[in-house]
Amino acid sequence: MNTETRVGSCNPEVTELVARLRQGDVRALARAVSLVEDEAPSAWQILSCCFSYTGSAMRIGITGSPGGGKSTLVDGLARRFRGQQTTVGVVAVDPTSPYTGGAILGDRIRMRDHEADPGFYLRSMATRGSLGGLARSSADVAVVIEASGKQRLLIETVGVGQDEIDIARLADVTVVVLVPGMGDDVQSLKAGIMEIADIFVVNKSDRDGADHVEKEVRAMQSLAAEHGSWIPPVVRTIATTGAGIEELEQAVDQFWSWLAQEERLIARRETHWRARLIDMVRHELLRELRGRGLSDQALAKISHQVVTGQQNPYQLVPQLLEPLIRR
Amino acid sequence: MNTETRVGSCNPEVTELVARLRQGDVRALARAVSLVEDEAPSAWQILSCCFSYTGSAMRIGITGSPGGGKSTLVDGLARRFRGQQTTVGVVAVDPTSPYTGGAILGDRIRMRDHEADPGFYLRSMATRGSLGGLARSSADVAVVIEASGKQRLLIETVGVGQDEIDIARLADVTVVVLVPGMGDDVQSLKAGIMEIADIFVVNKSDRDGADHVEKEVRAMQSLAAEHGSWIPPVVRTIATTGAGIEELEQAVDQFWSWLAQEERLIARRETHWRARLIDMVRHELLRELRGRGLSDQALAKISHQVVTGQQNPYQLVPQLLEPLIRR
Repeated sequence: MNTETRVGSCNPEVTELVARLRQGDVRALARAVSLVEDEAPSAWQILSCCFSYTGSAMRIGITGSPGGGKSTLVDGLARRFRGQQTTVGVVAVDPTSPYTGGAILGDRIRMRDHEADPGFYLRSMATRGSLGGLARSSADVAVVIEASGKQRLLIETVGVGQDEIDIARLADVTVVVLVPGMGDDVQSLKAGIMEIADIFVVNKSDRDGADHVEKEVRAMQSLAAEHGSWIPPVVRTIATTGAGIEELEQAVDQFWSWLAQEERLIARRETHWRARLIDMVRHELLRELRGRGLSDQALAKISHQVVTGQQNPYQLVPQLLEPLIRR
Repeated sequence: MNTETRVGSCNPEVTELVARLRQGDVRALARAVSLVEDEAPSAWQILSCCFSYTGSAMRIGITGSPGGGKSTLVDGLARRFRGQQTTVGVVAVDPTSPYTGGAILGDRIRMRDHEADPGFYLRSMATRGSLGGLARSSADVAVVIEASGKQRLLIETVGVGQDEIDIARLADVTVVVLVPGMGDDVQSLKAGIMEIADIFVVNKSDRDGADHVEKEVRAMQSLAAEHGSWIPPVVRTIATTGAGIEELEQAVDQFWSWLAQEERLIARRETHWRARLIDMVRHELLRELRGRGLSDQALAKISHQVVTGQQNPYQLVPQLLEPLIRR
């Protein structure tokens, strides 16, 4: 990267854009989010400007299997927060299939009820950049939305893969949504997802099997003594009717109070930033390399040579890096 | 990295290890796989040596939701291949929870039937290295297993997250396993996973709803005309009884024949290598950086400063990279 253009005081255009989104201009916010999501040349400056306005919002990650009713739950929570005059930003991470109409349509539907509400903003992460990194881009998007003055950020992911789990894990409070009738699925889900829960929600709890799911969670908790002194509560909800949303909010607040003690929130955010800084560094290094030598064209040629046995990738990669790295 | 020690002819120890695993020494194979999975200092050399012996095996990726019976299906296929004197390697990617006994126990159970069979080797990827990259390590492990002379590699993943999907996608043939009664889940799964299928399997097809799942797949296929001239067949199986395994094998062979035409296999593997080379480069750059300046200690300090607002990460990261990159 060019250090001069990417670091330091923002150029007038970026300064104005950030000032406008800070004043509640929704179009400026949407534009800034798009620039960041698209990794536009100004993205780094926008983030650098926005970062100073972040740190005080509560980030709530909500994850679980597809079809668990996460969106409805997020909407319910958002509505509740708005009813208390708390401003809300939502980042919905649900990589979209070329088969579907795409996230933009989904956003429109979900935004309908909040259309005239400047205290609410929702953004779906539809695209996965060519360099990957949905976790990075959603974290960046959250920075911009928080800078617009949102007090609570709800980050919703389909929490079945590592990428999506990582996103939820980067929140201050992580809510894992289960549903009755998952049967053995709680067993399979527990790889990765059960450990990250600060709060469990059993949604659709009017269905048969709610007791069973809760019992399974409890059984697993008894095996995992090392989780520390916070034992994740299990909250039952029926998101479609709003039942249990108040209890969920209380659980979130209780966990937030617990986090505030003994610098736990700071420690948690430090862990998050360690992972995030590494990801940022890795990403920037790759950008640099792509700009010099490892162009798409060069990469295509090398890939062909590897497949046809003319190149050994394990010999080649160190050679590729040699001219880039200062010793 | 130190180019001299990592590139070029292997040292005698590595040469011997690779020679032994090539001769069918299972302990040598297991040891080489562990060294590669653990990213031991000799890992790069082992991979470099092994790479020359790869390229001819057929790689079959098998993915789907948890609980879909993938392991049983993989075992069934493996048994069938072995019955035809075709050697088989299995890489089972299922990140293991601290709650469970771990992959090693699972390996033992799954290996029981193959114990005395030198033509079969199974390895579960239990660990996710501190630097992430399950896709990279499983691809590396597959290189070592293939170098031991296995003619078919079965790569099994819980295909619900991007990481796992990426692993399955890096195969020559990708099989997506569905089960009846998923209901709306086919809809939610299609983000990412439906597009990568070369072959669909409806497992547990004696259950109610097999027709429905197949119909849903067909409906989605009619929307996705751009997939090219190969229309993924839907194979019904009951993995526990072995029903349909023969048909699955035929579908795999048909797709393999299709791939052999018009250099499709080469084109496909080139696409895979483009992604993999980038990943390798990114990983090596990070290793380099971790060795100089960005130690765990430094990272902890910086993270603290970021959380407490003393550092702006978007200003810091370019500064961190400056001394590393040669201009």
